[in-house]
Amino acid sequence: MTTDIHGAPAASSEPAGLGVAVVGGGYWGPNLVRNFQASESFELRWMCDLRIERAQRALGRYSTVTATDDYARVLADPQVAAVAIATPAATHRDLALAALRAGKHVLVEKPLAAGYAEGRELVEAAEERGLILMCDHTYCYTPAVTYIRDLIASGELGDLHFLDSVRINLGLVQPDVDVLWDLAPHDLSILDFILPPGMAPLSVAAHGADPIGAGRACVGYLTLNLTGGAIAHFHVNWLSPSKVRTTMIGGSKRTLLWDDLNPTQRIAVFDRGVDLTPPAQLSEQTRREMQISYRSGDMVAPALAEREALRTMVEAFATAINTGTPPPTDGRAGLRVVDILESASRSLELDGAPVALQGTKGTSS
Amino acid sequence: MTTDIHGAPAASSEPAGLGVAVVGGGYWGPNLVRNFQASESFELRWMCDLRIERAQRALGRYSTVTATDDYARVLADPQVAAVAIATPAATHRDLALAALRAGKHVLVEKPLAAGYAEGRELVEAAEERGLILMCDHTYCYTPAVTYIRDLIASGELGDLHFLDSVRINLGLVQPDVDVLWDLAPHDLSILDFILPPGMAPLSVAAHGADPIGAGRACVGYLTLNLTGGAIAHFHVNWLSPSKVRTTMIGGSKRTLLWDDLNPTQRIAVFDRGVDLTPPAQLSEQTRREMQISYRSGDMVAPALAEREALRTMVEAFATAINTGTPPPTDGRAGLRVVDILESASRSLELDGAPVALQGTKGTSS
Amino acid sequence: MTTDIHGAPAASSEPAGLGVAVVGGGYWGPNLVRNFQASESFELRWMCDLRIERAQRALGRYSTVTATDDYARVLADPQVAAVAIATPAATHRDLALAALRAGKHVLVEKPLAAGYAEGRELVEAAEERGLILMCDHTYCYTPAVTYIRDLIASGELGDLHFLDSVRINLGLVQPDVDVLWDLAPHDLSILDFILPPGMAPLSVAAHGADPIGAGRACVGYLTLNLTGGAIAHFHVNWLSPSKVRTTMIGGSKRTLLWDDLNPTQRIAVFDRGVDLTPPAQLSEQTRREMQISYRSGDMVAPALAEREALRTMVEAFATAINTGTPPPTDGRAGLRVVDILESASRSLELDGAPVALQGTKGTSS
Amino acid sequence: MTTDIHGAPAASSEPAGLGVAVVGGGYWGPNLVRNFQASESFELRWMCDLRIERAQRALGRYSTVTATDDYARVLADPQVAAVAIATPAATHRDLALAALRAGKHVLVEKPLAAGYAEGRELVEAAEERGLILMCDHTYCYTPAVTYIRDLIASGELGDLHFLDSVRINLGLVQPDVDVLWDLAPHDLSILDFILPPGMAPLSVAAHGADPIGAGRACVGYLTLNLTGGAIAHFHVNWLSPSKVRTTMIGGSKRTLLWDDLNPTQRIAVFDRGVDLTPPAQLSEQTRREMQISYRSGDMVAPALAEREALRTMVEAFATAINTGTPPPTDGRAGLRVVDILESASRSLELDGAPVALQGTKGTSS
Repeated sequence: MTTDIHGAPAASSEPAGLGVAVVGGGYWGPNLVRNFQASESFELRWMCDLRIERAQRALGRYSTVTATDDYARVLADPQVAAVAIATPAATHRDLALAALRAGKHVLVEKPLAAGYAEGRELVEAAEERGLILMCDHTYCYTPAVTYIRDLIASGELGDLHFLDSVRINLGLVQPDVDVLWDLAPHDLSILDFILPPGMAPLSVAAHGADPIGAGRACVGYLTLNLTGGAIAHFHVNWLSPSKVRTTMIGGSKRTLLWDDLNPTQRIAVFDRGVDLTPPAQLSEQTRREMQISYRSGDMVAPALAEREALRTMVEAFATAINTGTPPPTDGRAGLRVVDILESASRSLELDGAPVALQGTKGTSS
Repeated sequence: MTTDIHGAPAASSEPAGLGVAVVGGGYWGPNLVRNFQASESFELRWMCDLRIERAQRALGRYSTVTATDDYARVLADPQVAAVAIATPAATHRDLALAALRAGKHVLVEKPLAAGYAEGRELVEAAEERGLILMCDHTYCYTPAVTYIRDLIASGELGDLHFLDSVRINLGLVQPDVDVLWDLAPHDLSILDFILPPGMAPLSVAAHGADPIGAGRACVGYLTLNLTGGAIAHFHVNWLSPSKVRTTMIGGSKRTLLWDDLNPTQRIAVFDRGVDLTPPAQLSEQTRREMQISYRSGDMVAPALAEREALRTMVEAFATAINTGTPPPTDGRAGLRVVDILESASRSLELDGAPVALQGTKGTSS
Repeated sequence: MTTDIHGAPAASSEPAGLGVAVVGGGYWGPNLVRNFQASESFELRWMCDLRIERAQRALGRYSTVTATDDYARVLADPQVAAVAIATPAATHRDLALAALRAGKHVLVEKPLAAGYAEGRELVEAAEERGLILMCDHTYCYTPAVTYIRDLIASGELGDLHFLDSVRINLGLVQPDVDVLWDLAPHDLSILDFILPPGMAPLSVAAHGADPIGAGRACVGYLTLNLTGGAIAHFHVNWLSPSKVRTTMIGGSKRTLLWDDLNPTQRIAVFDRGVDLTPPAQLSEQTRREMQISYRSGDMVAPALAEREALRTMVEAFATAINTGTPPPTDGRAGLRVVDILESASRSLELDGAPVALQGTKGTSS
Repeated sequence: MTTDIHGAPAASSEPAGLGVAVVGGGYWGPNLVRNFQASESFELRWMCDLRIERAQRALGRYSTVTATDDYARVLADPQVAAVAIATPAATHRDLALAALRAGKHVLVEKPLAAGYAEGRELVEAAEERGLILMCDHTYCYTPAVTYIRDLIASGELGDLHFLDSVRINLGLVQPDVDVLWDLAPHDLSILDFILPPGMAPLSVAAHGADPIGAGRACVGYLTLNLTGGAIAHFHVNWLSPSKVRTTMIGGSKRTLLWDDLNPTQRIAVFDRGVDLTPPAQLSEQTRREMQISYRSGDMVAPALAEREALRTMVEAFATAINTGTPPPTDGRAGLRVVDILESASRSLELDGAPVALQGTKGTSS
C-alpha cells in the first residue's frame, strides 16, 4: 500500500529502509538525524535547513548524507517516503502541507501546529491522502510513560482520580510563546496518551503570572476537568534555576509517582489508596499513626529499561508507514493537545474561567 | 500590665510560671501538655476534656496535674492566666470567648474559627480586653519557616515572584470539612507569616474535585494573586498513600525549595534566578546545555536546628503574655487565614472564578 | 517464678506493673524514663543518679516518681523488680552485678560491658540466679530491623552473601573510647540479631585512622568473615558533618538496602541478584544495557510503622521477666558484640591481621 | 615537534586535525569513535577490529571512515598520528608497543596493562621516543572529578583526612578478572588524580569474598594508608541489582560527598568538619542536639556542567600531542593504578595483610 509512495524498489538486492529527510537543524534536528541513522527501518537521505551550514553541522564531518537548503529538492526526491519537520511551530503548517501534497508521510515536532484550525488542516490533508501524519510527542515513547499507560490500561491503578504534574525548566524565557505553549504540550500529550478509553478532558481553566515583566505568562497552572469527576492539574514554570519533572497519578487502587529526574527510581507505585473510614470511627491510635507515618502501604518501583525515547518513536513512525496504521501519537492526538492549549489561552484571557474544549477525541473529522 | 490577670503572686519565693490549662485531649492536646510542661515559663495546672478519661490519658499515670471535665472550674481558677484550646474548630468561638471573658489569654488551634465573622468576634473580644489571642500556626515556629521568613526579609531572595506549595496527607478523609479547610490552613498561615511588608494576597481562585464521592473536595487547588503580580499556588490532597510537603519560593535573585519530609536537607536555596536573555541571543551551545542541565547556579542547604516547633510556639505565647505584645501568629493572622479559606469556598461554588479577599492585613478593626 | 522478686502483690486490686528503676540521668536515661512511664507493664519507681539534680531533671517538674542519688535505697526497695542501667560502660559491671545480687532483673545499655571478661561475669551471674539480663540493643527493636530479620528468616533474601554497613555520626569525638567501641556496637548488635541460625562471624580484621591526632581511631573499618564464605563489613566514622546510616544486605535472591535517615523509604528490597551468565555469552546489547542501567529488577519498599524502638524494647523486657524467657537481645547477645569489639581492637594493634573470635554464639557458658 | 609524526601536511588548504585510529569495536570503542568524530582536533581515519563487521557496526551505515581488520595497515598509514586502544587489558601491551614503535601517540583504555611490569614497559617505550602515552581514566575528565581536584588544590577542603568510595555495579561477573581489577581502576585513578602534591598511597590491604562461588572475588574492600595518616577505602561490588557510586572525602575544613548517580546534586560540600571539643566539655544540650541533628554546618552543591567526559578526554589527548606535554592521566598515572591493583592482589593472597606499593608517584624512571 505504501509502495507507490516509496517509488520503485531500490536496484540493490538488499532491502533499503524508508527514505527519510529531516528538516530543521536547530536544537532537535540533530537528535532526529542520529536516530534515523541508527534505525534499520529508515535510510536518511537529506538534512535540510534554510541555513545550509546548520544542516551540515547537524550531520557532522563524516557523513554520507546530503545537506541542502532547498526543500523543493527534498520533496522532489522519489526515494524520500517521509519527512520529519523540526522547525518552529509557526512553520509547521506550510512545511507539512507541502510534504503531504508531495505524497510524503510526515512527522512533526510538538506542538502539531500554532493553532487548532491549522492543526485540523494538516489532519484532514493527511487523512484525505491516506498518509501517515505523526506528532513527535517524544515522552510518550519513554519506558516510563509506556509503563504508566499499560498500568492504567491493565486496571491496576483502578479508576483514575487525579493527575498532578509539575514541569519546571531552567529559566529559558521563550520570545514568542508563553510557558503554557512552551512546556505544557509535553504533559498534555502524556495525559492524552495514558487516559483510558472513555475518559477525556472536558474543560480547562488556566491561571498564569508574569512577575518578571516578560510580556507573557512565565508561571502557569492548568486545571482540567475530566469525564467522571476526575481532575488533572499542570504546573509549568520557567522561573526556577532548578528542574522539576514529576507527575502523580492517583487511582482508586494505587497511586503512581513519576519523577523523571530520578534515574534510579523514576516510577514508584504505592499500594493503597485513600482510607474512607470516617476518622471518627478510626481509633485515636490509628489516627495518630497516620499523622506520624510517611506513607501507608508498600511501594513498588519497577525496573525500567534505559532506552532512548526517540529511537522508539522513530520505529513507531516506520511501523505506521509500513502497516498503514495510525501511530500512537498521530495527528489527531497532536490536535487534541493544541485544542487544550488554545482553550487554555482563552481561559487565561477570561481570568481563569473554565473553557470547554472543542472535543476531538474519538470523533471522526 | 498583665499582673491583674495573673492574680496575686505565688506565696512561694521562687517565681512560678504562668498558670495554664489545656482544653481538648484529642490528637493535639497531649502535645500541648508535653510542651507546656517542658517550659519554664508556664505552670500547667489543668487538662480539661468533656471525657475525663481522655484528659487523664493525655496526662499519663505519673502526673501531678489535675484532669477535669469541668471547663467552668478551669476558668474560675485565678492561678490560670492562659487557656490553650485544642478542640474541633466549630467549638473555638464559644470556648475562646468564655476564656477571654474570664480574663484569660487564649491560644487557639488552627483554624482560628469556623468562619470569618466568628474569627473577627474573637479578635475584637481580645483586643477590647487587652488580652493575648494567639493562633497555633505551628509551622511558623519551625526552624525551616523561620529561616524562610528571615531570608525573605533580608532581601536575599529578591522580589517574590511565585510560591508553589504541595501538601499531600495520608488519605484521611475528614467528616466535616473539605480538604481546603483541613490542610490549607497550614500553608496559608505560612504564606501569611513569610510575606514581606507591603505584600498581601488580593484574591483567590479555587478548584476542587471529589472523584471518590466523599461529599466534599478531596483534592484542592488554590491560586492567589498577590500585590505586585506575584502568584501563590497551593495543592492540598487527601487521595494519596504517600505524603508530600514541599514549597518552592521563587524570587528575583534566588529560588528556595523546602521539602519538609527530607530531614537531611529540608531547605535548599538555589543561586540564580531566571535568565532573561532572549533565546535567540543565546548561542545554540548555551541553549543545548540548558536543555540537558539539571540546574544552573549553586545551591546552598543551610543547617537547621532540629527543634520542636511547639516548644518555640509555647515560648512565644509566654513572651506575648509577659510583654503584652502580639505574638507572630496573633488572632489577626488567624483571621487572615480564615478570610482566604472562606473566599476559597466561595470560589469553589463559583466554579473557580476569583474571589476578592475581605482584606484584613495591616488594617485596624 | 518472679513473684518472690516482686515482693508481695500490691494491696490495691488493680494489677500494678513491674516496679522498675532507671539508673543514670545522662543522655539516654530520660528516654528510658519516658518509655517505662508509657508502658502499662511497668511502674516506674525511681530515677537514680549520682547527681540528684540530673535525676530530677530527667523526671521533669510534674512527676510523681522519686529521684534519688542513693543506689542502695533503690536496690533495697522490694517493689523494684528490675533495674535499667544507663551509665558509662565502665560502670556497667559493678552496677549490674549489685542489682543481680539484690535479685533484680537488669537491663544494660550497650555495650554490655567494657570487656569480654566483665561481660561474661554478668551473663553468668544472671544465669546462676535465673534472672533476666538484657542488653538495650535498641536498633533491634526498630520496625526496620525487625523487618530485615523476618525477611532473612523467611528465606526471601536467599542465602546471605554480604552485609555492608555505614554509620557516620556528627563528628563527636569521644574522650574514652575509639570510634569502633562508640558506634560499631549498634551495627554489630544488628548483625547478631538478623543472622539466621547456623551463621556466625568467625574472625574480624580492623583498620583505622586518626588523621586529626585525637589519640584514637576516628575512622574505622571492620571486615568479618562469616560461616559459609559471606562477608560483613562496617564503616564507622566520626569525621563528617553529615550523618549516614545505611546497610546493604546482599542475598542470593534479593538485595536489601536500609537507609535509616530516609523516613519515606527506609527499606528497599531489590528483586534480582547477580547475573552469573558469563559476559562473553551475553549479547553486546545486553551488556550495553547493563552498563547504562541503574538497576535490574523491581524494587519493593515496604510500609513500616513509625513506632519508637525503645517502647518495643521496654515491652520485650517485661515479657522476658514475666515469662522467664531470654529476650531477643539477652546478655549473651551483648557478650557476642563485646567479643567482636575486643577482637577488633586486637586486630587494630596487629595492623589489620584477622583475629578469630572467642566464639560464643550458640555455646553454653 | 610532532610534525614528523604527522607526516606532510594535508594538500587541502583547510587545517586537518590529527589523524587517529580507534582499535577495538567492543563496548567502549564506539564511544571513542563518536567523540573523535565530534572533535575538531582530530580526523578519524580508521576503525580497526579483528572482526571487521564489529568495526563496521561501530561506524554505522553513514560513515566516510574506513573499517579494517588489519592493524598493520593502520600503523602503516602516515596520516595516522595517534592510536586509541580499546581492547581487553591482556592485549594492551602488544598493541600499544607496536603503535609506539611505529611512532604513533597512544591512548589506552584502563587499566594501562595487565601488570606492573608490562605497564612500565609501555611507559618507558613512550618516554624513550618522546611520544604521548595516555591512559583513558575517563572519570578524571568529568566535571565532578575536575571540581573535586580543584577544590582540594585550592585548600578549601583543608588537609585530607579520609576518602571513602563505593562502587557497586549491576552484577556483571567478569570471566577473567576479579572485582578489584574490574571496578577499582576507576576509583584508584580518581584518587591518583585528586591527591594534592606530596600525598600518595603507601600501602594497601585488601579483603574479598566470593560467596557465590564465581571463582574470584565478587566483593572487595581496599584500605590504603596515605602519607600523613590519612586513609582511603574502596568498596567494589558486583553482587547487587542496584548501582551505587558515591565517594566521600573528609578534610579538616570541609567534607565533600559525590554521588554520581544523582544528576540533580552530584556534589555536596559540607561546611564544618569534626568538633574536637571533648564531649565532657559540651553541654548536655549540645550533645543532645548533635544526637538528633542530621548534620551540622551548611552544605553547598555547586552547579556542574553536564559535559561528556570522553569529549574532554579526547581534547586533552590532542593538547598533549600538540604541545608535547604529558596529559593529566599519562602512562605514569596508569602505572600507579596498576601498582595498587597488583599489590592489592598480593594482599588478598596474604589474607588482608598490608602490602607496600612499588611507589612510582613523583619518581623518574
